Formats: sequence, structure tokens, C-alpha cells
Amino acid sequence: MGLRTGSEYIESLKKRNPTIYCLGEKVNDVLEHPVLKSTVATVARTFDLAKVPEHQDMLTAESSLLPKGEKINRFLRPFLSVDDLVMRQHQIHLLQRRLGSCALRCTGLGMVNTIWETTYQIDKAKGTNYHDRFKDWLKHLQETDIYETGCMMDVKGHRNQRATEQADPDMYLRIVEKRENGIVVRGAKASQSGPAISNETCVIPSYYGRDEGDAPYAVMFAVPTDEKGITYIMQHNNADALAYTGDDRDLGNPKYGGGFGSTSLMVFDDVFIPNERVFMAGEWEFSRVAVVTMGFMARMWQCGCRPALMELLTGAAAAVAEANGVLKAYHIRSKLIDMTIHSQTAWGLALAAAHMGKPAPSGSGIYLPDSLTINVGKYRSVEGYWECCKLANDIAGGLATTIPSFKDYDNPETHGFMEKYLVANPAVPAEHRMRLMRLVQCMALAPTAGGIHQSGGPMENQRIIIERGAEVEEKMHDAKVICGILPEED
Amino acid sequence: MGLRTGSEYIESLKKRNPTIYCLGEKVNDVLEHPVLKSTVATVARTFDLAKVPEHQDMLTAESSLLPKGEKINRFLRPFLSVDDLVMRQHQIHLLQRRLGSCALRCTGLGMVNTIWETTYQIDKAKGTNYHDRFKDWLKHLQETDIYETGCMMDVKGHRNQRATEQADPDMYLRIVEKRENGIVVRGAKASQSGPAISNETCVIPSYYGRDEGDAPYAVMFAVPTDEKGITYIMQHNNADALAYTGDDRDLGNPKYGGGFGSTSLMVFDDVFIPNERVFMAGEWEFSRVAVVTMGFMARMWQCGCRPALMELLTGAAAAVAEANGVLKAYHIRSKLIDMTIHSQTAWGLALAAAHMGKPAPSGSGIYLPDSLTINVGKYRSVEGYWECCKLANDIAGGLATTIPSFKDYDNPETHGFMEKYLVANPAVPAEHRMRLMRLVQCMALAPTAGGIHQSGGPMENQRIIIERGAEVEEKMHDAKVICGILPEED
Amino acid sequence: MGLRTGSEYIESLKKRNPTIYCLGEKVNDVLEHPVLKSTVATVARTFDLAKVPEHQDMLTAESSLLPKGEKINRFLRPFLSVDDLVMRQHQIHLLQRRLGSCALRCTGLGMVNTIWETTYQIDKAKGTNYHDRFKDWLKHLQETDIYETGCMMDVKGHRNQRATEQADPDMYLRIVEKRENGIVVRGAKASQSGPAISNETCVIPSYYGRDEGDAPYAVMFAVPTDEKGITYIMQHNNADALAYTGDDRDLGNPKYGGGFGSTSLMVFDDVFIPNERVFMAGEWEFSRVAVVTMGFMARMWQCGCRPALMELLTGAAAAVAEANGVLKAYHIRSKLIDMTIHSQTAWGLALAAAHMGKPAPSGSGIYLPDSLTINVGKYRSVEGYWECCKLANDIAGGLATTIPSFKDYDNPETHGFMEKYLVANPAVPAEHRMRLMRLVQCMALAPTAGGIHQSGGPMENQRIIIERGAEVEEKMHDAKVICGILPEED
Amino acid sequence: MGLRTGSEYIESLKKRNPTIYCLGEKVNDVLEHPVLKSTVATVARTFDLAKVPEHQDMLTAESSLLPKGEKINRFLRPFLSVDDLVMRQHQIHLLQRRLGSCALRCTGLGMVNTIWETTYQIDKAKGTNYHDRFKDWLKHLQETDIYETGCMMDVKGHRNQRATEQADPDMYLRIVEKRENGIVVRGAKASQSGPAISNETCVIPSYYGRDEGDAPYAVMFAVPTDEKGITYIMQHNNADALAYTGDDRDLGNPKYGGGFGSTSLMVFDDVFIPNERVFMAGEWEFSRVAVVTMGFMARMWQCGCRPALMELLTGAAAAVAEANGVLKAYHIRSKLIDMTIHSQTAWGLALAAAHMGKPAPSGSGIYLPDSLTINVGKYRSVEGYWECCKLANDIAGGLATTIPSFKDYDNPETHGFMEKYLVANPAVPAEHRMRLMRLVQCMALAPTAGGIHQSGGPMENQRIIIERGAEVEEKMHDAKVICGILPEED
Repeated sequence: MGLRTGSEYIESLKKRNPTIYCLGEKVNDVLEHPVLKSTVATVARTFDLAKVPEHQDMLTAESSLLPKGEKINRFLRPFLSVDDLVMRQHQIHLLQRRLGSCALRCTGLGMVNTIWETTYQIDKAKGTNYHDRFKDWLKHLQETDIYETGCMMDVKGHRNQRATEQADPDMYLRIVEKRENGIVVRGAKASQSGPAISNETCVIPSYYGRDEGDAPYAVMFAVPTDEKGITYIMQHNNADALAYTGDDRDLGNPKYGGGFGSTSLMVFDDVFIPNERVFMAGEWEFSRVAVVTMGFMARMWQCGCRPALMELLTGAAAAVAEANGVLKAYHIRSKLIDMTIHSQTAWGLALAAAHMGKPAPSGSGIYLPDSLTINVGKYRSVEGYWECCKLANDIAGGLATTIPSFKDYDNPETHGFMEKYLVANPAVPAEHRMRLMRLVQCMALAPTAGGIHQSGGPMENQRIIIERGAEVEEKMHDAKVICGILPEED
Repeated sequence: MGLRTGSEYIESLKKRNPTIYCLGEKVNDVLEHPVLKSTVATVARTFDLAKVPEHQDMLTAESSLLPKGEKINRFLRPFLSVDDLVMRQHQIHLLQRRLGSCALRCTGLGMVNTIWETTYQIDKAKGTNYHDRFKDWLKHLQETDIYETGCMMDVKGHRNQRATEQADPDMYLRIVEKRENGIVVRGAKASQSGPAISNETCVIPSYYGRDEGDAPYAVMFAVPTDEKGITYIMQHNNADALAYTGDDRDLGNPKYGGGFGSTSLMVFDDVFIPNERVFMAGEWEFSRVAVVTMGFMARMWQCGCRPALMELLTGAAAAVAEANGVLKAYHIRSKLIDMTIHSQTAWGLALAAAHMGKPAPSGSGIYLPDSLTINVGKYRSVEGYWECCKLANDIAGGLATTIPSFKDYDNPETHGFMEKYLVANPAVPAEHRMRLMRLVQCMALAPTAGGIHQSGGPMENQRIIIERGAEVEEKMHDAKVICGILPEED
Repeated sequence: MGLRTGSEYIESLKKRNPTIYCLGEKVNDVLEHPVLKSTVATVARTFDLAKVPEHQDMLTAESSLLPKGEKINRFLRPFLSVDDLVMRQHQIHLLQRRLGSCALRCTGLGMVNTIWETTYQIDKAKGTNYHDRFKDWLKHLQETDIYETGCMMDVKGHRNQRATEQADPDMYLRIVEKRENGIVVRGAKASQSGPAISNETCVIPSYYGRDEGDAPYAVMFAVPTDEKGITYIMQHNNADALAYTGDDRDLGNPKYGGGFGSTSLMVFDDVFIPNERVFMAGEWEFSRVAVVTMGFMARMWQCGCRPALMELLTGAAAAVAEANGVLKAYHIRSKLIDMTIHSQTAWGLALAAAHMGKPAPSGSGIYLPDSLTINVGKYRSVEGYWECCKLANDIAGGLATTIPSFKDYDNPETHGFMEKYLVANPAVPAEHRMRLMRLVQCMALAPTAGGIHQSGGPMENQRIIIERGAEVEEKMHDAKVICGILPEED
Repeated sequence: MGLRTGSEYIESLKKRNPTIYCLGEKVNDVLEHPVLKSTVATVARTFDLAKVPEHQDMLTAESSLLPKGEKINRFLRPFLSVDDLVMRQHQIHLLQRRLGSCALRCTGLGMVNTIWETTYQIDKAKGTNYHDRFKDWLKHLQETDIYETGCMMDVKGHRNQRATEQADPDMYLRIVEKRENGIVVRGAKASQSGPAISNETCVIPSYYGRDEGDAPYAVMFAVPTDEKGITYIMQHNNADALAYTGDDRDLGNPKYGGGFGSTSLMVFDDVFIPNERVFMAGEWEFSRVAVVTMGFMARMWQCGCRPALMELLTGAAAAVAEANGVLKAYHIRSKLIDMTIHSQTAWGLALAAAHMGKPAPSGSGIYLPDSLTINVGKYRSVEGYWECCKLANDIAGGLATTIPSFKDYDNPETHGFMEKYLVANPAVPAEHRMRLMRLVQCMALAPTAGGIHQSGGPMENQRIIIERGAEVEEKMHDAKVICGILPEED
């Protein structure tokens, strides 16, 4: 049927009826929900952008499963070459520059590779038939261009105990019953992005099996996201709260910024999975393969995504500096250089790891990026993102923390005051400056940190006063005495 | 009348009628407003704690103005000795450990010192009578134990232009009319914490006068916070939004965490100030003194406050680690050590600057902390706070970002799932773990950064894999060849 | 004639008679000089390693100039494809792991590309014949496998003045006379590695021409390194001094560690260059091309080289830890992980920049690495190297600073004491531990820093005591009060 | 007899006859030895400066033991008040600004406090008479103004084994024989600064006793530094090697820079100590007191000393920048600010820890600085010093690594070239610029790091190119699209 449009994706959601709770109430329509609607808009745009001619190389690929090598969304193509790894990085980088939020589809692509690899290894060792079953399902995905996600992270209970040692055996998702035509699973996956607004999801373990006792925890399958027995309890944090209170413009990223990932606690309360969607059921020796392979996938998407977000934050900070009238100041430029060093470090490592990629030793055909490089890349991207938060706040100034709502901007009682007093550089209207401040806030403001940072002036103020108090002349004098240019005086 | 209680302070607010807007609507009662109520609770506790016997040394002091050296709240005592500087640091440190939010009263104390110093210098040079006028007012404050705040930061317009060069002359607050019995002022102060819930406020310039043209901008005065012509437009950001949506427990700091500082854009739309509350009116040569002195004050409070917040965040992160069951893991302990290094660096510098304090050269009697040390301290405290944000998120894990609301915890449809699946260390109930996660979120979660940080596992995961890929054996081999322990092989 | 051996290179040096001064005396034989002999040994090994079969891909290449695509040393092949860029990085990385010191030949390779590019552009614009002249010379180099170096950095005089504004016009090397058969040049190049022990050297400007007045400074040529009028004054610093005083083993890297680069101030005192070796003579508009292209070259070699040195330092530190008996301690392993993050960051960026390489826009055929990535890589490599110095010293402990000489080890009066008291882990002999300590010292010991670092115990000691004083329990208590788990007590 | 002069101290050395080996030979006269002579000069200056009237407060103190509270060198006064702690920090800070090298006397002062405290505790618990014995000896020191040092660090053998478990029982210094009139000790102390050029030294354990088996290792005593059986084997490293090869000016710090600390491996080969100099002999429960107390002392001196060295390095870097003609460049000033932040952080913590000091709980009268703060201070000072090394090298440029020797400067064959080509800012003679480069080298140049750092240009070069490649305009564009200022285009 070819590549779907964003609208087609949205239409498909109307046929679902998932059980979602948020803020103590049931969510009846994800398209109307203040947070989920922006998540839906984000995903919709990933469909639409894949139809733009100049993005074809990055956002689409040829199928290895469909008869004529039909063009598919790159999110549905496994990594079968170094070029797939490299283009994968360009794909996510491009999307993140356009979205400024979580693209939500990376877990799905991770599953495509992870289940491919794991089922290949199981079948090879055990003579089972999981791999073909999975490829059939993947082919179906590619034909229908479905939005498919992935679930891995269990709630895990006590961190120092194995699954089988936990007081409650459900701390890791497990098979509670095997029937002739399928299995019944119970447990919960934490912090899941996407399933609540996707068509189908894959589930894999987050746990290494060590012996036969771990067999119930070795389970992989695909399931429609509104299957009976699945409940979503949505996150609610200081980032998404803003979607309920202010104007969309207050999100900084009005279309896509309603909740970075907008995750849920996803509960599987005795969910039935028919055999044709089961890709592992008890082969505990291979849960490790799934965990390790998905680790590669997660490191890859993080390395490709974070640089784009850092770049966007750099742009936002620079645009605020322009609005403040200080874009050309050396210390502002110097901070923008620092931000660029952080983003490019992560991006360079992302590409290097892809170029250094090699086929998995199993012979499955899957290519994996270089492990050391991709992990160093993810590590640097996290370090770098926090540094960029600090730098962006330093550049933007206190208003990134203390800006009033656009609701006040629209209120006739206060509109005039805001219009008058929130302009800095006259070339940038107050409304634009407010939007930019919001974007910095949306991407980079840790509560408390913002107030702490700016109260009493930004860090550059301290540097100025430190320079005044540094007594460099006296220190130069003493250095000249020490090296014999000036005589000792006491 | 002695030290007021928190309740007396709250009572006094009921007699005010300030004009406050928030989220597009007028705020009729600060005591009922989701954000301002917690700010009021914070201030109320500063009154109550000053009455606790074991805190007397830190939270109260003797008046230098009242006849018998009566005991007053330390927030109303100018710095007249090195001991005042040192005890000031202990005062704010103690309060912040109890409040975990902005104590809100520091600007008021800053004004006590700043206006004292500035009026002293003006009178000495010009023969005016501002200093006695100010001392009379201060004495009145001390007698009535009023909550007094301070306003400095103008909106500033284009950063590269002087006040007199701005397209709109109101970008810095100024005297628009001088009358026989007082002055009329216009302008706006940005990011003001406290005035909306205080009894009186002082106003000083944020601008160095350079010539007579700057005279209208050289103005200092005190004013009741509900004076006609004053309008407050409240901040609305990703930290305070949570106060409107979730349960109080979702704030992490349910009593005091509703909005760190909860600042306003404070508009002075032709406000009349009677002469007896005017402390500077046109003496542009001295606006610099006010700005510089207030700078010392701001650096001091920041240095004393931030360490306590970092300590609290360290405690929160450690308590989450306990709830997760990993408090004793080396890498957790190592991160707690790092957090301690950050907090103690700032705290040591705060105390050192106080101990190195000296009387102002003017002879006013005011003591100032060491300039270089206090600025280095503030700088380090900002750097350190961001590092602590990163570390606390790393320790706490993804749930600090993705935790559902307490409203879902209370909803019978989802309560059971959360009770079951959000326990880790069985010694810590789910509800406690949720509260602690919230506290970390409330103090340290930058939007986007949280998701970025944890997606695909915390930084320690990468370190483990990096260690596996580090090929230390091969590197040791090559080093041994180089230094001659092993022979060259090629 | 094929690839030369190290011995052949050394033989070729005996035919030269350069004027070299060091420590106030003339150096009559570079092969016997305490510092230069190790530099010669380093270069000799680059010839020998190029003959090792398994290194062919990295260390050799096919010529684009010789008739049958004959195999040449990769140091003489211009970058004519992305693969050349990538293999270049592997070449230098391999060499540095074997040498642990400066390979010395990178400037020569830089010249091959820089003069290729620059002459191509001059000829294209001016119809001159420099490019073919240069290719003839390069072909000659490839045929004879000569060790050729490059000189760029002028002494530069006052940094804020152009060449033509300097009090002394010789602050940048310049043409002082044009003759029919050649040119005469005067000036000095600072910090030159290699020429004093090489066969020929190329010279290019370090200065952007801006107008016709700069024409004399726009000069490129090749010259035998013992040409009349050239004088070398050798560096003498705290690293190479050790080559004069102790035993070779005291260098840590006994064969190649006698002086990292062992640079000279290279004076051109009216040196005649015949036309056939002149590649630019007055075309001031193109000196910028040379400077910029050589910049790319320098960034490339730095990015490929530094990771290998950091890896070697990691190996040395790990081997010392083994000798101390603490290799498995968590904090040691954690520091080795940090060192790995630093080395791999630079290495990943080095490879990424190569893979992102593109042909120069001029059409010359030369490929250049990605500019942003390679500069970020160099920046990170410098930051990283200093961090590795700190970490290696922290791991190695005080003996890396305070180890006595091997001369004392050999002295019968003291041998027994050193043999007895310098063993830690009994599996590692004192002599081996001393060698390893020396290697860390040779690669990473800043004077003063070493003493400062270890005096009173390494940083881990402080961390232990900081943990004891951190009062984490009290902080947890206060955090629990704040989030409402425990009641307020005052 | 009052305070001695430097000359008197030097005279006293002539009466000693210690057994010192260096570079495989016996050192017959410390006053003529290239390295030890500068160590002697350093100590001599600590005597002379104590006689300068304006330094009396910092460098001298009143004795608590001599009848009339006679004035003594502060190095001989125990810490008996907070003021002693504070003045101690000022003492070492002042000395280090004058010396730029190790003052060498801090271990001696550490012993004064450590043995005071430890003997007090032993006597209190055991009824022994060590404390009075020690005070008698201390009184003798104060009367004669002797240069007394201290030895603590054992060679330690295998780090994971207790003293009693080591293959060789001498890995920690121990009592091998008890006689009626004294004890005989054997072992070796590593990395000892000072004893080889001092009059007497104290020895304490570096090891916590855990049971009676550790009794032989619980030993404290004083001993003349040329006692029979003591052998010194001097360090030889990349810092002190320069003292043998170049001109004194090549040391950067010609008088005092010959070897930072110039430590020795100090062997006690069955040395007899008479009872009147024994301060502990078997009381293993108290070796811990000695170790812990000396830890406080070491952290204190490090915190006071390092800031002064960092300040001096800041001065040296600034003076080089002046000589290069770039002192006013923003990026230079910015780096000087960074250096100031590092030095003042450590200095503020040093003072804070002193001001927070408290009497030891034992009742001995000794005051100890705040443990947490002083350890954080030491930690920061090490971090900061390495950062300052990097920054100073970045400011100074490549010549700090590649400068030729002053012997070449004096050689008529090369003098002219160096005079001509090593001038940058014409206001600073070549000779001065060379001295300053040397001082940076002497204080901050890690071998390899220097070459690595500057090869291809300093870090600021990369920043410039990174800025050019940062595509800030494109990033601003995308940010404006995201926040809705510009429309989406694809």
C-alpha cells in the first residue's frame, strides 16, 4: 500500500480503544488529550516527512522482504549494511532537527533488529521457527506501514535480587500460562514511550536468564496496543504539566513539545498472545541476546538524536541572544562554541560508530555499530546535554525561567504591559522573544536550577568581578621576581 | 512588638489588596492560589523558625536601632560586624535545609544593607538627609517585624543601549514627575520574588548613572506592595505548572515547593511615593553604589543558600537510591561524594568570604564579604548545582522523569497497579518512593534532559560496556613493550 | 628503488652535514647525540614497520605518479580518496602505539597535500607551472623513499602586527632576493620537528597575505636540510633533559622517548633555493590556501596520534596499578574507564572526520576531512590528554614523581635497598615497576603538579574522608521531611 | 637564641655528614649539589623572611613553652587556637608566593602537632611519659630554631596486605630491637622532602595498628638526619634533570626551582634511637591517631600552598601573554579568570577550614581544621592545578615547550639569532621572554602534553574554526520553526 501519510496514521488511531489513565482519570480520546495529542502530531510528522522527495535517502529504504524491493519507511528496515547504520543516524538527526522532541519510533526500529537477531540465534540453536514467524510479521508491517513500537524495561523491583528471588514474581514480565494456541503474560513495563498511541508493539525481556528457573521471563511477542488486559498509566512531570495549564505557545515547541516521550507505566494484567505473534517463549539462554542487541539499538538512537537536540538548543539560545541584543558579544559566542563542541562530539561519535559497524557474528545478517564508540558517544551526549542546559540558561538569562504565560499576553488587562516591557532588541517582537524563551525553558530548564542560576546575575557577571579582583598585576610581579627579571624585595 | 509568628504574617496579608494576574486571570486571594499559597507558607515558616529556641543565634539578632538592643529577625539586621556576615550564612543555610525552596526574604535583607550604605554615602557627599530617613523606616520595620522585600532588576530593553538611548525611556524605572510631597515613578522590574506576598518593598536602580541625563533613573524608595498603580504578572514555567495539575505530593516538596521564587513582572504604572519613603531621587553618581552593594548581597545569599539545596538534593538522591535498593553500590557512593564536593565547595567559599569580610571604606559601618571569594563562590555554586542535577538524575533513574501522578495513585482503578509495581526495596513503600522521586524531579529535572539521560540506561551502564571494550590488556602490553619490559614483536 | 629500511635511512644521514647547536655546543653527529639519536631511531622504525607484511594496508599505498602504481610509504601519498583519509588515521594510530613518542613524519605528509593543493590553485588562476614542478619532485621522493619534512610556523614577532608592520621585517620568512636561477630567503621557523634529522624539507608560509606588500612572504619551496645558511638551535626542556643525565631506562621509553619531537629553532640566513624547487614566489593571494590546507593536515594527524598516546598512557597506568597490587580496585578501574572515554572520543572523531571527507572544491583531487569534526576532535584530544595526565598520576602514585635513577639502581651501594624497598606486588620485579613508573613520568608528569598531586595522598584519599564527613544520613533525613515522609520537627 | 638567619641554617649543615646518593654517585656536599643547593636556598629564605618586620604576624608566633612567650618561627608552634590555624594558612601562602617551589618545612610543623596530640592521648590512656618528653624536645627546637622535618610514608609493599602479612616484614618501618637505653629501627620512608638537608627529623607510622602483632610498627621518634644507618637515595625526574644540564635560568625559577621537594628514598638500616627521643614504642592502638592527625596537617599545608602556586602560575602566564603582545585579548583574559577561579576556590576553602577549626576532642589543646572542608579543598587544589597547567600552556604557546637553552643564548654562534628571533612584543627583551617561558615550563609542562597541546595551534585556533563551522544561522532557523516564529517548510 506504500507509505502512509500522517493523516492515515491518525485515522488508524480512531479504531483503537486502549485503556489509558492520566491524572486520576481515564483518557477517552488520545487526539484530544493535552499531552498525547502532541505526541500523535510528532509521529504523524515522521510519516509526512518520509514523503518529502529530498528526504527519501534518509527517511526511506528498500525492503529486503517485499518482492520488488519496494520503498518502505526506514523505521521498518533492519540494519543489513554499514550504509543502513550510517543512514539511520542521518534519519534520526534530520527528524530531531524538525521535531525538537522525542520522535517516538526508535524503539520500534530497535525491535526490528533485536527480534531479527534473537530469533535467528534461537532457531539456529534450537531448530524452532521463530525467525520466519517474525519475518512474516515484519513483512506485514512493511506492507501496511504500521506504527509499531517496542517495550523492554521491566519495573524490576529490588535491584539486588534476581527475578526469581523477588517477593513478587511479577517484577519482570513473565508467562503465567501456556495454552495450546498461545501464552498469557503478566507484569509491567516502565517508562514506555509510544505504545499508547501506536498500532502494535513488540515486547522483549530486560533481564538476562541464568538458568531454567528464568524460563518464564524469556518471552518476546507482538501485540495490538489496545489488547484486553493492557493498562497505561501516564507519566506526569514538570515538563508535561505545562500542557495542561498554559497556552500551546507556552510549550516553546507548540506542536510537538507537549511531553518529551510522554511515557506510561504499561501494565500487562494477564494478556493473551496468540502463537503467531510469539517470538520467544522460555528460551532463557537467549534473553541475553535480546537485551544486548537492544542495548546497541538504544545507544545508536541516542547518539544520533541528542546532537540534533543540542544543535536546536544552540539555535534557540543564539536566537534569544539576538532577541536580547547580545548575539555578537564574545562571551555569548564563546558559549555557543562550547555548545557546538558538545553537539559535534556526540554526532561525530555517532557517525564513527556507524562507519565502524560490522555484521553480527551470528550470521543473521544484522549489522551492529562499534560497541565502544557508540557507548562513549551516548555517555558524551548525556554529559553534553546537561552542559548545554547550563549554557543555554546562562545565555538566555532569567526570563527563560520567569516568563509569564501567553494567557497573560492575550489578556487585555496585561497585554499592553507585556508588549511594552518584554521587548529588548526592537527588531524582535515581544511575542517572538517570549516564544524563544519558552523554547529554551522547554528544552533546558531544570526547576530550581534556573532560579539559582540567574538570581544575582548570570555567570558572566561573576567572571567580570572575578577579573577585577584577580590581582593579575601582583601575580605577574611575583612571577617576574621568581624567574629573575625583577629583584627580590624582602 | 517582638517577633511575629507565621500566622500573624499571614493575617497581615489579608489586609492587602494587590493587583496580581496569573494565567490570564486576576488572582483574588494569594492564600488560595496554587502557587502563591506555597510561597506564603515558605515565608510563614521563616517567622516560625525564628521563634525556635535553638535557632536564636542564627535566625535572630540584636537591633542596633531599638533602645534596648531588642531581639529582631536577622532578616532586618544590617551587617555591622564579621560575625553578622558569618551568622547570615548560617541563617540562610539552616532555612534552606528546612525549606528546600526559595526563602524569599533575602532581597529584603539586601536592601537593608544596600540602602543603608548608599544613603550614608549620598548624605556625606551632598548633605542630604536620606540616611536618617531610612533608619527611621528600618526601625519601624524592626518594631513591627514586617516582611519587607526588594526590587532591583529592570526589564532593560536593548542590552547594548543606555537607559537614555532606549526607544522607550521606561525600560529602566524612572521618576516621571517630582511633586512637593513626593515623586511619581514608572517602569517595570523583572523576575521579582516576594513583593506580591509581602507587606512592603524597597526599590533601587539596576543601572549605573553616568551623567546628569541619568538622574531620573537614580531612585530608591519603599512602598506598600499593594500601592495603587502596581501590577504583578506572575511567572508560569515548567516548575510551577505542576502546582495546578497534580496533587500537592506531586510537587516533591508539598508545602514549600509550589514555585521556586514564584516571581512576577512587576509594573509601576505611575506610582506615587511620598517623600518620607524616598531614599534617593536623582543623585545619579550614587546609583552605582546601590548596584555594587546589592551585588555583594546577592552573591552572599546565593553562596549560603545553594549549598543547602545541593545538600538536600544529595539527601534526596541517596534516599531514592535506598528505595531502589542500591545505596551501598560503589558508583552510587562515588556520585554522592561528588555531590558533597560540589556543595561543600560552595559552602566553604561562603564562609570564607564572610570571615574575610571588612567594613565598607565609606565608614558607614556596613561590613562586606570578600569580593573575589564570594563571586568565585557564586560561580562554583551554579556550576555545582547543574552537576548535582545531572548526578541526582543519574542516581534516581528514569522514574524521576516518568513517575505518574499521585492522582493516579489515589484512583482506585490504578492504585493497585502502582502499589504493586512501584515498589523496589520492600523496606520502602511505593508512596515513599514516589515522593522521593518527585523531590528529585522538583529540584533537578530539566525537561528533555531527563528523558535523554535515562533512555537506554543511566551513564553507569555505558561505563560498564566501555570497560568491557577498553582493551586494557592490549594497552598494558604495548606499554610494557615501550618501556622495555617486553620485546618488540614487529 | 622500493621502500627503504631504517638502516638505509640512517646511512643517508651520514652524508649530510647540518649546522646544529644544542646546550651551547655544536652537534657533530646526530646519531650520537643523546636526544637526536632517539629521534633518529623513531624515524628508522617508521621505515621498518612499513615493511612488515600485516601492516601493508595501513603503512603503505599505491603511488598515483609512478608508472605501475608502485607501492610507496603512505607518508608520501596525497589524500586522493576517502579511503586515503581513513587509512591515514589508522597509519598514525598504529605507529603511535608502537612508538609512544612523536613519529616526526606527519609534517612531511602534510606538505605533500598542502603544496599539491596550493600549486594546483595557483596554476589554475595564474597559468604558472608550479604544480607539475611539485609533482616531479614528489615523484622523485616516492622513487627514493626519502624522509621529507615540512616547516610552517614563523617566529611571528608581535602578535598584533602584520608581517609588513613588524619592527624587524624578518619575523616571517621572506624572499630577500630574486635571481634568475632562484630565490634567496631569510627568516626563522619555530619549533620545527624533524628537519634536523631528515633528508629534505618543504617550507610554506604561516601567514595570510592581504595585499601586494605581502608578496615576499608568499613563498614555498623544498630544500636539502643541510643547505648552506640553515642553522638549527635545539629545544631544551624538562622532558629531554633526562636524556643527558640518567640511564636510558630513566626515559620510560628508552628507545624513542629522548625528546618528544625534539624541535629546533630553524634559522634561514639568506639561503639560496634554485627555481626547480620553488613552488610559490610572491603569489600572496594563495598563501591563505597553504595555511588553511596545512591546518586540515595538522588537525588530522593530531586526532589520529593523540588517541594512541592516551591508550598507551592508559596501559602504562594500568600496568603500574598491577605492579602496585591494586589493578582490580573499583576506583582504579573507574579511572581507567575515564581514560578510555577520553581516548575513544578523540579516536571516534578522527575516524568520523575522515569518513565525512570530501574532495577539495578546487578540483585538485585532494580530499579533506570534515572541518568541524576534525577541529572538535583536536580540541577534545588536548583536553583529554591533560585529563589523562592527571588520572595517570593519580593511579601511579607518588613514585612516578620521586623514583630514583636507574644509575642508583645499578650502583652496588644502593642496588640492594632499591631492590628490597621498591617492590610492591611481588609478581612484578622492582626493575619492571621502575620502568613503568618512568613511562608514566615520561608521558604525563607536569613538574610541580606531580608533587602537588601526591603529597598528602592521592585524590582517592580525600574522597574517602569526604564520604566520612558527608553526613548523608542527615541529608536524607531532611529530604524525607521536605517530601513529607517524615514530620517537621521544629 | 632567637630566630636564626638563612646563613646560620646553612652553616649548621656543614657540621652534618649524611649518606646521600644521587645518579649513582655519593653526594659529598649538599651545598654544591645542582639540585640540593636550591632546596637549601629555599629553606634558607624561610629563615630570612621570618626576620622581615612586615611578615612577623604570619611567619612568627609566641612560644607556649618558653618562659616569656618568646617569639619563635611559626613552623615550630603547635596549633593552639583558631588564629593559629588561620595564620598558618597565611604563612604558607606568603612563602609560596615568594618561593614558587616547595617550602619544605611543612612536614616538620605537621609533626609538632601530630606528636603533641598522639603522645597526649597515649599518656592519658597508658600513664606513659611521652608527652612531656616531646615537649622538652620541642622546647629545645624552639630555643635553637632548628630546621626539623618529618617522615611518615612507608614504602608499603603490596597494597592489599597488612604489614604483618608482607613477604618482607620491613615494608613498614619497625622496631627490630628494644634495648635498655633505646630502640633499633629498620625500614624505608618513600618520597621524603627535606630530611637530607635538615638538622633533625621526626618519624611516625603511616599504618593503622589493628592488634598486638602491629606493635613493632607503632613507633615515633626524633633523630639527627645524619645518624648512622640512614641512607638517602635521591629522586631523579623530568623536573630536576634540568638542573644538571642547562643554565640556572633554564629552571625558570633559578634560585629555588631546582627540584620541587627533591625527595629521597630514606632507608633506616638498623638505626639506634635513644629513649629520650622515642615518643611511641609499641602502642599500636595509637598509630591511628598519628596517621589521622598528620592527615589533617597535610591537607592544611596543601590547601594553603597550592593556591599561591596557582597564583604564581597565573602571573607567569599573564606575563608571557604580555611578552607575546596578547595580554588584552578576550580569550587570554578569560583563561586568566579561569585560573583565578581555580586558585581562589582552593584558597577560600583553606581559610574556611581554618576558621571552622575546633579543639581536638582529646583535650590536648591542639586545634584541627574542619575535616570535610579541608579535604574538599585539597581535592579541588589538585584538580585546579592540572587545569592551570593546561591553561598556562595554552596561553604561553609552543615556545614554553620548545625554547632552546640559555647556554645557546650565551653562545656567540647562536646568540644573535635568538636575540633577533625570540622577541615578540618589542617592549619585552628576548631574555625576559625566555625566562618567563621557562617559568611556565618549570611549573606546568607535562612532557608530551606540551607538544600535543600546541602542535597545530593552541585550542583557541580550534575554537575559531569550530565557530566558522557551527552553522549557528541554520540552527537558529530551525529553532524559530520549532517555536512557531517561522513556518515549517517540508
